[in-house]
Amino acid sequence: MKENLSKKEGPDVVKKLGGLGFQIAEDIERHESPKFVVPQRGLGNVSFDEVDNLLVLGDKTSTRSFLNVAHSKKFMQSILIAAKADELVSKGKTASIRELYYQLKHNIEGTKENTFEDQSESDPLIVDLEVALEVLREELHLKADDKGTVIGNIVIEDSGDRIDCSKLGRSGLAIPSIVEHYNFVKFDAQYILVIETGAMFDRLVEEKYHIKNNCIMVSTKGQAARGCRRLVNRMSNELQLPVIVFSDGDPWGYYIYSVLKAGSMALAHESKRLGTPEAKFVGMTMTDIDTYDLHSVTEKLKDVDKKRIDELLQYPWFQKKEWKKELKLMKQKGVRIEQQALASKSLEFVAEEYLPKKIEDGELLP
Amino acid sequence: MKENLSKKEGPDVVKKLGGLGFQIAEDIERHESPKFVVPQRGLGNVSFDEVDNLLVLGDKTSTRSFLNVAHSKKFMQSILIAAKADELVSKGKTASIRELYYQLKHNIEGTKENTFEDQSESDPLIVDLEVALEVLREELHLKADDKGTVIGNIVIEDSGDRIDCSKLGRSGLAIPSIVEHYNFVKFDAQYILVIETGAMFDRLVEEKYHIKNNCIMVSTKGQAARGCRRLVNRMSNELQLPVIVFSDGDPWGYYIYSVLKAGSMALAHESKRLGTPEAKFVGMTMTDIDTYDLHSVTEKLKDVDKKRIDELLQYPWFQKKEWKKELKLMKQKGVRIEQQALASKSLEFVAEEYLPKKIEDGELLP
Repeated sequence: MKENLSKKEGPDVVKKLGGLGFQIAEDIERHESPKFVVPQRGLGNVSFDEVDNLLVLGDKTSTRSFLNVAHSKKFMQSILIAAKADELVSKGKTASIRELYYQLKHNIEGTKENTFEDQSESDPLIVDLEVALEVLREELHLKADDKGTVIGNIVIEDSGDRIDCSKLGRSGLAIPSIVEHYNFVKFDAQYILVIETGAMFDRLVEEKYHIKNNCIMVSTKGQAARGCRRLVNRMSNELQLPVIVFSDGDPWGYYIYSVLKAGSMALAHESKRLGTPEAKFVGMTMTDIDTYDLHSVTEKLKDVDKKRIDELLQYPWFQKKEWKKELKLMKQKGVRIEQQALASKSLEFVAEEYLPKKIEDGELLP
Repeated sequence: MKENLSKKEGPDVVKKLGGLGFQIAEDIERHESPKFVVPQRGLGNVSFDEVDNLLVLGDKTSTRSFLNVAHSKKFMQSILIAAKADELVSKGKTASIRELYYQLKHNIEGTKENTFEDQSESDPLIVDLEVALEVLREELHLKADDKGTVIGNIVIEDSGDRIDCSKLGRSGLAIPSIVEHYNFVKFDAQYILVIETGAMFDRLVEEKYHIKNNCIMVSTKGQAARGCRRLVNRMSNELQLPVIVFSDGDPWGYYIYSVLKAGSMALAHESKRLGTPEAKFVGMTMTDIDTYDLHSVTEKLKDVDKKRIDELLQYPWFQKKEWKKELKLMKQKGVRIEQQALASKSLEFVAEEYLPKKIEDGELLP
């Protein structure tokens, strides 16, 4: 096995949080309104960087000022969140964004007002703080839900334990919502295969695909959670392994791929740390339907699928000719196809023919 | 660590499937219509066994006859499924119920008819087969989706690997959809704590609750999947450990508990293998709101919550006085409370005070 010597060093988040506090204290000392500059996060400030193949946030900003009545409450809430994040990081604790909300929700003394009425008030302010300070939510010791499984020839150090992901039977390691603390100790693999559905992951585990083809397999179980996206990003960068994505042949599967590769609009500020521009797509493609004669196991597109195809055709990151061709072909055929439809050939087909052949021949979409 | 010597011996599924085929062949030889007897699965044939605390299927049956035009297609489909299950078991392969559908879907020669048009045709017939043969879906080598995580001081043998679930950092083992092949090699724990939300599981992992309190922790991530329910059932039976369930304080959390304990209506025929009647409930209770002064972090009941409370109050397995009291108190207070609302005390509160005290004092609901 190769030794992985690169180490993940987090930025000094406490320093950044302290800097924010210091700046506000200065405003007060200068008898100015305390303020807080936040990059705008609307679609109007998101663009697609064709060179890096990543969604990126532009440089439009907004200023939140304490003495502006329309901003006061949000300003107060932002500072509460920053102070709590500072406490979490200092104490080495992590909180879910729901716990954070409960921790901060209280009555403001001498008033009938609560600090927060609903989690929908704290969630966007957490993202504001991430963007303003250029830190990952995970580095603020806040976390979203976890989802996803990993299996294969990699040893991960997690909180003092060395976990050999090739020795987890058919179960695999549950990917937590935060993987910043993971240390990749050693690995021996040719590539990383990222799989949309849990059922297809199970199929490939049963076929010992990861062993026979010497790869690390990750199941996203639908749209990939942040922890899962970050794990793929870190493995791609730190292990220098190719990433190959295998999803359903429908606009939803293609979007899952695009989020893994280029990032998402909502988290455009974190594309560099959550996206994996080197990722390639193995299937299911519309061309597969003809190549492998899968006509009898396709499904008719619903209106909502057709609408989604049209949306994808508008996105700048789907303007590559290969993707325009696939999306147009999907509309023209009027069908979608699932990964599991390959079972109509035989259960083993996907592991013994479909994937090895397409990957060996380099039949991958960009 | 204790050695676990009990072993899981599956029934002879191939024999049972063969028996079904033999019986049909006999019908044909006797020039009778081939038939197939299936226990009825409607609510009219489900009852609550108060002694065992399990939902059980009654003994009403239906007969599916090949020469009855209304039954012919379903008869043919059932036999196709039985034959495929026989093939899977013989080959030592496992298929998802979606793969099974794709494997069996084909044109019937000489007609314009397909064997199956939609997975909604094959799914209920799989359950029929389970019930008729008294086998678990997992024993037919068919599987549903997987979900859930386990961590703690137990060594599980899975496909030749010995997995020490106390050495998986903060990640934990992903519970697969089938756990029939798991072998519990050894364990050292006082009880099993089953937790509804992934975020609360993470909290308790971070607080090292399972280490400090010497327990095995299972996260169901919402309603428990079959693999997760079966794992809890097997650990309860084979390791003879108490099971304690920790869910949100709302009708949905209480129902998750009742399914883990008594089984579900849809799978009443498998309650003995999926339910854990010995399970007890630690929280969140409505009484907790007063005991721990959590009034400011409750949430108002929505109409859909109120309707669900009324439904639960009708179910025979919620007729215990403790549960009637909780459900009525919930309606009276008009609020629900989440597990994570305990974070309003402090992040550590749930792990250092709430759970240890309630469990030590035996403040558990039946």
